[in-house]
Amino acid sequence: VKHGLLSSPDSALTRTQLRGERELIAEIRARVPAAPSWLTIGIGDDAAVIEPPRGALEILTTDSLVESIHFDRRLSTPGDIGWKALAVNLSDVAAMGATPRLALLSLGLPDTMDADEVHGLIDGFLSLAGDARVALAGGNIARSPGPLIVDVTVSGFARRRHVLTRAGGRAGDDLYVTGEIGSAAAGLRAWQEGVLDIPGIDACVSRHRRPEPRVRVGLLLGRNRAATACMDLSDGLADAVRQVAEASGTGARIDAAALPINAATRAWFERSGQDPIMAAISGGDDYELLFSAPRRARGRLATVMRQARDVPIARIGALTEPRDLGVSREGREEPLPAGFVHF
Amino acid sequence: VKHGLLSSPDSALTRTQLRGERELIAEIRARVPAAPSWLTIGIGDDAAVIEPPRGALEILTTDSLVESIHFDRRLSTPGDIGWKALAVNLSDVAAMGATPRLALLSLGLPDTMDADEVHGLIDGFLSLAGDARVALAGGNIARSPGPLIVDVTVSGFARRRHVLTRAGGRAGDDLYVTGEIGSAAAGLRAWQEGVLDIPGIDACVSRHRRPEPRVRVGLLLGRNRAATACMDLSDGLADAVRQVAEASGTGARIDAAALPINAATRAWFERSGQDPIMAAISGGDDYELLFSAPRRARGRLATVMRQARDVPIARIGALTEPRDLGVSREGREEPLPAGFVHF
Repeated sequence: VKHGLLSSPDSALTRTQLRGERELIAEIRARVPAAPSWLTIGIGDDAAVIEPPRGALEILTTDSLVESIHFDRRLSTPGDIGWKALAVNLSDVAAMGATPRLALLSLGLPDTMDADEVHGLIDGFLSLAGDARVALAGGNIARSPGPLIVDVTVSGFARRRHVLTRAGGRAGDDLYVTGEIGSAAAGLRAWQEGVLDIPGIDACVSRHRRPEPRVRVGLLLGRNRAATACMDLSDGLADAVRQVAEASGTGARIDAAALPINAATRAWFERSGQDPIMAAISGGDDYELLFSAPRRARGRLATVMRQARDVPIARIGALTEPRDLGVSREGREEPLPAGFVHF
Repeated sequence: VKHGLLSSPDSALTRTQLRGERELIAEIRARVPAAPSWLTIGIGDDAAVIEPPRGALEILTTDSLVESIHFDRRLSTPGDIGWKALAVNLSDVAAMGATPRLALLSLGLPDTMDADEVHGLIDGFLSLAGDARVALAGGNIARSPGPLIVDVTVSGFARRRHVLTRAGGRAGDDLYVTGEIGSAAAGLRAWQEGVLDIPGIDACVSRHRRPEPRVRVGLLLGRNRAATACMDLSDGLADAVRQVAEASGTGARIDAAALPINAATRAWFERSGQDPIMAAISGGDDYELLFSAPRRARGRLATVMRQARDVPIARIGALTEPRDLGVSREGREEPLPAGFVHF
């Protein structure tokens, strides 16, 4: 903890804020479930102290959500924001084939946010942390001069031979994606345009507000050695396909007809004058997993699919020897859209 | 990595930014020294993969610097900001008696910052990282709608019996502090008021801009088991004394005459009409260490002081049985100033 330096000397406000922050930390600490035995020291000292995972590698990632860049407080509740700040990090850990274990939460709080809203944010965070069995081990609270800033670090673990990277794909491997693509982008854009009369569009808006990170699928893919490469879809499918192909030294071909795009997403993109396939491929904010798997791993993949139960997994294309990136569509080949953030 | 969601659809700007961010990450990656053998995967995948320290506990902390709360870009150069964002985290690790090993860097970049400035920030960060032998293992770059945001996570390690907490102090232990107190506060305030004609005030301003975290002292205190409790002075000495006493279940008495306050700091506080002792005790942003040590550990402490060489360590008081907190001054007792951020 380290407080504001640039406020006025002897400021009563600053005194109140420091007291407020200390109280807030005490309140958060009181709400965090009992620490697991490997968490030697959790919230409340200069740093957390942790027994490292035995016989495994540590997986460490950080990602932030910044107001008006990643979320709009008119749409996302504080609980949504807390949930999502953890979700985007869990998604990164899942993409490595790892099990998340603990999180640090660093908040930059604007003066416009009251204590109830901060607690709402913590509720959302702890709700997903509970689902994913992730311990809140520490963090930091600072003031922000404007935007709400939520920065999260997650530590997880995986055995060395279970770690999935972006670089392990080979030409000939099939490409798969979990869940569905483009819905979060469609939902956000439809909300922004005030078009909420499309059946099912609410679920798309929810996908933007509370993405479900594919923690279990990532873990199963790693443990079962069912994938050769894996990456999450934070910047959209086109970007992920490009990154995995580049890191693996291959090209890629996507089959448009195989893409999991739901009816509301298609309807929204059509109504807004966009090509639904290309828009869904380009749309970011899908916290799904893209992975590659060779034909000989199909048996192991079937095991993963059975154990993943309610998470659909679609085969959407393949990595190729030629280094170009394309979309096959009604017998024609089109280039993969540029790796940009659509919305 | 996860890019802006709320920009306009198909925005050329967004495309340029994403390309710019990818290039920036590639440039940073090219500048980072060769990865140590325990860093299995560094920058460039969904997460870092690390071999945990053997026979030691992991120490994990996160802390952020937010523009106009923690720094002013008219005073601090980008290099200063990068340096300090790492320094405040190294200070937390040092306060646990641990050795820092790696860092993650999460940036929220405003549109007003150009590529040279970002590289300057990275320069400052990597310069301190090199000094402290800390590997940059990953991170995240996002846009910010206004303030520059630098959030850092540091992982370090320590043997279980070498870990220092705030809670280990006992009544009768002496209290010590490294370096000097109040200088960063005096330097910042003098700069803000445009009073730079005090001899030595430049060095105080530098202490605000580039604090030297007490990495070596913290590590030596832990390894030599020379301290019972330890905490860093990010929010000032008064706050640290209060926290250590509270966590240890003791009171504390500080000896005003023993406090290490330099002449420029005294001169500034006097000139601005403040009591130099109370102002220096209250001033935050000193990344020094406060620690407690029993008399019987004085031999071990002498070893630490010898090995710490150029870092002065002053005995400034003691933890006490009665739970009150006071300052002894010319034979009188005054209450310890409230735990607030002075400036």
